[in-house]
Amino acid sequence: MRMIDIIEQKREGCKLSQKEIDFVIQGYVKGEIPDYQISAWLMAIYFQGMDDEESGYLTKAMLESGDTIDLSAIEGIKVDKHSTGGVGDKTTLILGPLVASMGAKLAKLSGRGLGHTGGTLDKLESIEGCSINLTEKQFIDQVNRINIAVSGQTGEIVPADKLLYALRDVTGTVPSIPLISSSIMSKKLASGADVICLDVKIGDGAFMKTIEEARKLSRLMVSIGKAFDKKVIAFLTGMEQPLGYAIGNRLEVKEAIETLAGDGPKDLEDLCVEIAAHMVYNAKLQPSLKEARQIALENIHNGKALAKFYEFIHAQGGKIGALDTFVRTEHVIPYQAKKPGYVQSIKAYNIGLVSMHLGGGRETKEDTIDPMVGVLLKKKIGDKVAIGDVLCEVYANNPVGEEIIKLLDEAFAIGDSPIETLPIIQEIIA
Amino acid sequence: MRMIDIIEQKREGCKLSQKEIDFVIQGYVKGEIPDYQISAWLMAIYFQGMDDEESGYLTKAMLESGDTIDLSAIEGIKVDKHSTGGVGDKTTLILGPLVASMGAKLAKLSGRGLGHTGGTLDKLESIEGCSINLTEKQFIDQVNRINIAVSGQTGEIVPADKLLYALRDVTGTVPSIPLISSSIMSKKLASGADVICLDVKIGDGAFMKTIEEARKLSRLMVSIGKAFDKKVIAFLTGMEQPLGYAIGNRLEVKEAIETLAGDGPKDLEDLCVEIAAHMVYNAKLQPSLKEARQIALENIHNGKALAKFYEFIHAQGGKIGALDTFVRTEHVIPYQAKKPGYVQSIKAYNIGLVSMHLGGGRETKEDTIDPMVGVLLKKKIGDKVAIGDVLCEVYANNPVGEEIIKLLDEAFAIGDSPIETLPIIQEIIA
Repeated sequence: MRMIDIIEQKREGCKLSQKEIDFVIQGYVKGEIPDYQISAWLMAIYFQGMDDEESGYLTKAMLESGDTIDLSAIEGIKVDKHSTGGVGDKTTLILGPLVASMGAKLAKLSGRGLGHTGGTLDKLESIEGCSINLTEKQFIDQVNRINIAVSGQTGEIVPADKLLYALRDVTGTVPSIPLISSSIMSKKLASGADVICLDVKIGDGAFMKTIEEARKLSRLMVSIGKAFDKKVIAFLTGMEQPLGYAIGNRLEVKEAIETLAGDGPKDLEDLCVEIAAHMVYNAKLQPSLKEARQIALENIHNGKALAKFYEFIHAQGGKIGALDTFVRTEHVIPYQAKKPGYVQSIKAYNIGLVSMHLGGGRETKEDTIDPMVGVLLKKKIGDKVAIGDVLCEVYANNPVGEEIIKLLDEAFAIGDSPIETLPIIQEIIA
Repeated sequence: MRMIDIIEQKREGCKLSQKEIDFVIQGYVKGEIPDYQISAWLMAIYFQGMDDEESGYLTKAMLESGDTIDLSAIEGIKVDKHSTGGVGDKTTLILGPLVASMGAKLAKLSGRGLGHTGGTLDKLESIEGCSINLTEKQFIDQVNRINIAVSGQTGEIVPADKLLYALRDVTGTVPSIPLISSSIMSKKLASGADVICLDVKIGDGAFMKTIEEARKLSRLMVSIGKAFDKKVIAFLTGMEQPLGYAIGNRLEVKEAIETLAGDGPKDLEDLCVEIAAHMVYNAKLQPSLKEARQIALENIHNGKALAKFYEFIHAQGGKIGALDTFVRTEHVIPYQAKKPGYVQSIKAYNIGLVSMHLGGGRETKEDTIDPMVGVLLKKKIGDKVAIGDVLCEVYANNPVGEEIIKLLDEAFAIGDSPIETLPIIQEIIA
């Protein structure tokens, strides 16, 4: 078998066999196939695609390139979730304790944020004392004890994805549906859960710009899941504006707590309740989705979900007392509306970049982050504003420069007509 | 400027600017842009193409990556030719002396053969004593003295092409019309001629499989030539069977001599006369194509072209006496027809491979070649054959193995119906 023939076959739009895909991935991980052949192959995949079967083979080859987590020591059906990356996306912090409070087992390996999107680990680490470096034993014991644990990736989970992703990032081959699917699914399958909920973000601030693309990606991931005998449910959710009001690590923790206390933004609560219902129903803990939804809402309003959050943070070493202090930065700068009307759009991508430039995110993997900084929206799409109304507050520990103001100027569009907002969940594919 | 942005732009089908293309080529030659980004970019070009202007920029950037030959010390209009590579293609050996005998100045840098196609240098070196290592001064002096010189490439002609070609060869990005065009045209433009005739081969044994592809390539190369103020004429010629009857270095020299003596195969003579006429007319040495054609035929039949050939070989150090001996190999094996009928096709690719396997060509650049071996066709497409008629003779210095017989079995197709052959020149684009 020769790599050049496999590149040419894909270039010509032919279907690759499992043997050929294994040859590529194994050869690449072993260092036998050079980067320059892999990048040409990835670009050919970008243009010619891969069908469901090929995508499944690619997922399997990637999965088998490294270690997998054995969750068999956890009793019952294990649930997991993954988001394709959004701005202001603190879903895991809410959904995790919520489903744990309903009896589901969530053993979640999580990642850090990069670029304009945040990561769950960074949000947890913004809580004093909170550790995400659990051993496999600690991780499993904690799930058995309190139903939830979140850890950074240990061991060599899907090394092929690390190599491929680094190469895709510098060769213009990131936005390919089969490549995104196999990257996500290989990691989720390696993490060992039985029920996997995927939050596929759509819009300006997300990988998928349109619902059609999001549908394709979702269908492919559900199909790959099926091939591995896993229940995969994809939630197509709006990211034409940030999720909730808070963007920035500590600001998002605060909003998560408010949401778990029944006092959160509607979009965020709706999303968490719906995903929680599907998780709990598919974990066979409730007889119907309707009942699962009802219990989820109950646990938000009766304090059980919030109690589980504190139990979870405590188990991970976090200081609960630290959570009650407000977010404190040197500057809190109001950003005001320059004209009256209705908020037409809030570019999530720009708001994400503002948070990153403030120090709340990473431009490169090596950057350290400032947990306190971020943006707190005061208005969302559809809200009526007068001149001078505060659209958002910028939490900063350094003077706010022109580039940030420029990003905000471009982020908010205000128009004369009222505008209706879409429900947060636009479609569910299972 | 960042390479990733340039890859993404091309991936999205956008037109690249001259600055961007210069950035890529200069960065690559300097070693600042890695192979894996270039190969992804090449694959994006394979799918998205490049327009005439971009192809011109690419050609210019490649041309400027190295040395160019200054032919200003040669008086008059300089002519040059290039073939996209065929089987049995000894055109330069005939055309060169022919146009030189008509007063045109041919200063030709030539290459070696690789794979199933031969190269002019190998054919010249099959003549005892013949040297193709001329200094630039020897090269120019010889053209001034006898109108013709052929040399191997000296100096660093288009180093960008050497790098890019080596990468394209292993990344499935060879068959792209803008990439082929800029590779050919950058080298031809670096060689300094004013009138450039391109022999674009079409068919099984060639890069271009169809006339539509050949047309696109030709039009693009003519357009690039125009942008550099050069007259480029493309001849679209058939390669569905080998050119002439002889394939193999010394066998081809012999056939070239026969053709220059007015005793060559019709297809080969037709092709050389037509290209010669265009060269001489465009070099303003004859008032019309018709008159140029007539003089070309005259010089073939009055001995002037052949005399120029001997003068040329002598000037390059070749022993003229050695040319009169026949081609001698240990074995000359007749390959016979297994059924009666009409020859329907002779796969040029297979015949080229046979010659290579016999030792007449190179599989890798390091291989040495046996100048005497090759294939001498006895029949061509349209010829009537009886069982046992010799289709070709195999000139070999080693026993002929099964793989060669298999290639020949697949090469010749004999059918019941008579078949008409196409004229060798199918179209001229200028």
